Amino acid sequence: EPAMAEEAAAVRVQAEVVRRLKHDKADPDEIAKEVAKLLEMKAQLGGDEGKHKFVLKTPKGTRDYSPKQMAIRERVFNAIISCFKRHGAEVIDTPVFELKETLTGKYGEDSKLIYDLKDQGGELLSLRYDLTVPFARYLAMNKITNIKRYHIAKVYRRDNPAMTRGRYREFYQCDFDIAGQFDPMIPDAECLKIVHEILSDLQLGDFLIKVNDRRILDGMFAVCGVPDSKFRTICSSVDKLDKVPWEEVRGEMVGEKGLSPEAANHIGEYVQLHGEHCGLIERLLQDPKLSQNKLAKEGLGDMKLLFEYLTLFGITGKISFDLSLARGLDYYTGVIFEAVLLQQENEHVEEPVSVGSVAGGGRYDGLVGMFDPKGRKVPCVGVSIGIERIFSILEQRVEASEEKIRTTETQVLVASAQKKLLEERLKLIAELWDAGIKAEVLYKKNPKLLNQLQYCEDTGIPLVAIVGEQELKDGVVKLRVVATREEVNVRRESLVEEIRMRTSHP
Amino acid sequence: EPAMAEEAAAVRVQAEVVRRLKHDKADPDEIAKEVAKLLEMKAQLGGDEGKHKFVLKTPKGTRDYSPKQMAIRERVFNAIISCFKRHGAEVIDTPVFELKETLTGKYGEDSKLIYDLKDQGGELLSLRYDLTVPFARYLAMNKITNIKRYHIAKVYRRDNPAMTRGRYREFYQCDFDIAGQFDPMIPDAECLKIVHEILSDLQLGDFLIKVNDRRILDGMFAVCGVPDSKFRTICSSVDKLDKVPWEEVRGEMVGEKGLSPEAANHIGEYVQLHGEHCGLIERLLQDPKLSQNKLAKEGLGDMKLLFEYLTLFGITGKISFDLSLARGLDYYTGVIFEAVLLQQENEHVEEPVSVGSVAGGGRYDGLVGMFDPKGRKVPCVGVSIGIERIFSILEQRVEASEEKIRTTETQVLVASAQKKLLEERLKLIAELWDAGIKAEVLYKKNPKLLNQLQYCEDTGIPLVAIVGEQELKDGVVKLRVVATREEVNVRRESLVEEIRMRTSHP
Repeated sequence: EPAMAEEAAAVRVQAEVVRRLKHDKADPDEIAKEVAKLLEMKAQLGGDEGKHKFVLKTPKGTRDYSPKQMAIRERVFNAIISCFKRHGAEVIDTPVFELKETLTGKYGEDSKLIYDLKDQGGELLSLRYDLTVPFARYLAMNKITNIKRYHIAKVYRRDNPAMTRGRYREFYQCDFDIAGQFDPMIPDAECLKIVHEILSDLQLGDFLIKVNDRRILDGMFAVCGVPDSKFRTICSSVDKLDKVPWEEVRGEMVGEKGLSPEAANHIGEYVQLHGEHCGLIERLLQDPKLSQNKLAKEGLGDMKLLFEYLTLFGITGKISFDLSLARGLDYYTGVIFEAVLLQQENEHVEEPVSVGSVAGGGRYDGLVGMFDPKGRKVPCVGVSIGIERIFSILEQRVEASEEKIRTTETQVLVASAQKKLLEERLKLIAELWDAGIKAEVLYKKNPKLLNQLQYCEDTGIPLVAIVGEQELKDGVVKLRVVATREEVNVRRESLVEEIRMRTSHP
Repeated sequence: EPAMAEEAAAVRVQAEVVRRLKHDKADPDEIAKEVAKLLEMKAQLGGDEGKHKFVLKTPKGTRDYSPKQMAIRERVFNAIISCFKRHGAEVIDTPVFELKETLTGKYGEDSKLIYDLKDQGGELLSLRYDLTVPFARYLAMNKITNIKRYHIAKVYRRDNPAMTRGRYREFYQCDFDIAGQFDPMIPDAECLKIVHEILSDLQLGDFLIKVNDRRILDGMFAVCGVPDSKFRTICSSVDKLDKVPWEEVRGEMVGEKGLSPEAANHIGEYVQLHGEHCGLIERLLQDPKLSQNKLAKEGLGDMKLLFEYLTLFGITGKISFDLSLARGLDYYTGVIFEAVLLQQENEHVEEPVSVGSVAGGGRYDGLVGMFDPKGRKVPCVGVSIGIERIFSILEQRVEASEEKIRTTETQVLVASAQKKLLEERLKLIAELWDAGIKAEVLYKKNPKLLNQLQYCEDTGIPLVAIVGEQELKDGVVKLRVVATREEVNVRRESLVEEIRMRTSHP
């Protein structure tokens, strides 16, 4: 099949050769020879088959962004980057692929979703699966023990795409992480503040940030009688509780994963606990079994501290301590969290329903140590914002509102009402460009004024600078405001200033 | 070897399990069991061998960007994006990989440098090699016949890297293209104006933009007696003339590529022609042989028109018509160009020497048609700026100048002089964040004031907002200017405004 494509391409090239020869009225013998060659190539390919076989698409699970989509995407990025910078983050970048072994053993059951590159000689490479493992590799490689950084880039997962719901195989992650040895829960609380700021800023409707701690989960598993070796896999089961009911999760634990029914029931009692965070934390701290477990106690103590800080930040209203939150990835060691958008409440729905996760993160104190030759640890906590789902929502909203989004920032179109003024238009636009004005000109020798004005209407250009014989004589340019059709003559030397003034508040 | 890495990772995970059990003072039997398992795993791996085998690096030909490097990179991007927007371009994005067949047959001899992905079931994929072919695929797929867009993204080539000279396997291209049927040479001239603006704006020293036309080259090959089938390969030889002397190129043409010595000599006469552009164009238009060739005549006529427009733009001083410019890629059909930086002239060097290409482009009127099922063409012309070399130069310059580059934009550090004020610091910083102020706080319960001030010195934070018992009572915050050590008490409700005022002109 690829060979087929190669041949089909060769046919197209040969067809172009023939076309050119004909166009150039070349030697008829020469043309005949090349035509014969073309026909032979086509025949070998099986008639026109090669042409039809060629599929014009992007790879499965990926998409292009049109200018309009890019305009929405840039709004989202601006909101996110502003927030990251407001919190004093630096920015880094890493390659799109890593050595295969860098990713090995970091993602547990999800490793099968990693994209590998073909072995073309040299190193074995894989596309990055997230930005966290490359970050940990970067810290270990450069012996950095203290940094607050953000990183916005695409990651790759050979998952089943569900593009209408914003699930892609190539998608952006916007990560903010704090690495370093600090007093407990201060950076952790800042990560939650950041999620709160971004989701508020983007005005996506109501949201909820669920919080839990891997230490509480592990402690809970221990006191419920889950064997150590099953911690991670039972954790994966618990993680499904936001999508499937408890009975089904219990079935998986007992049936597929061989957990004892007693242990499963015991877990069920815990993960179905609800309540106001302070009350729930206190209740668990007094739980006769859980309070005896070191890890759980540590986790619960830190959770209490976390909520104290979140109260100071004034954001506890949208944060919920949720024992059923588990998170899929292997590398978390402490606090974990996930933000979900809630469907707009209406009369028919009693409780707001989650429409999916848009951010997640947590503490991973062991990951950097996995890269350090001496196992030296760098404690880290971070958050990852997934923009695809957010972007889907905003895109739908723009479609629905019929809001007109400009995809360029052009301030002025340089136009002429008469013929033979291309040179004058080019001279004027060069002056404007050199003065930093965003300007366009139609690529026609003699465009009609109507077409030039229509172009402004279509693309939202607010001003037209019109040159004409009389204006040239008078040393002026006619400046037209597209919206009002107002026209004023402006002295050429004042034109730049006039355009700046009229477009300074777009 | 990858299996080895997998096992080494498993050992590290197991070591972590043991560490945690010990830390938790778990059941000694449990610990013993896990330690035994760890030792067994280590033994299988051959002692510590696995650990030493693990290489901490980025893949060959790639690199990370540190925050400092990112700051320089963002300056370059800003200059380039400003210019593209000044010229009214929209922006698009495409996936990092394409269907393998999308790239097939587009790059001639360079195709061997394409990165393929491993066949993991499903479509065969390749990493993009440039942004031009994905752009053409995008146009054909969406039936777009008219667009002016830019696209800034990484591309991938399995070339021999020379990283000190800014040649990487993963590198950015910044592309600006104009697609559509327009009057001749107006968009082409704008592309050259853009290169001129960007290279001037970045202040990289003197530069030269070489211009030629594929039609002139092909016409020249024809009148020199090069067979049609050898056009592209002889073109590749000519393209080497900026690196190797004519004699060597001639040798390749005659020796390797089987061209007749007469034809080669004839080409040599043309490509070694020099002179002021108008004079050279006229001379070639009157060349008895070349003027008889349709293609060459067309190309020369357009070249003349191009220089008329470039004169109107006032940029001919840095543009040179150069018959030896050929460009490597297959898809060009008309004007081609390439910008090179010139070494600073000094007394010891008579002529400025080229230190390498930083931008290139041209017209490719056939590429979109190769993707269209009916072969419908969309004429295109575009330019690609390569930032790696530019970035290397600027990075070296920053190193040399010892200029201090800030990697964050933080306006104020929220600090305290006394102990037990963490809560007050967190309350204040949340107020500042919510008001849009860029603020940081040290993640310590009781940091020393000196350490807080030192942090500002190190990272360039200009202001410190100090809370203390007395200030809290008085309803003020002490604002300290780091540079001058000046301190003023500001009423808490005026703090945001005061910080904004003092940092509005950084």
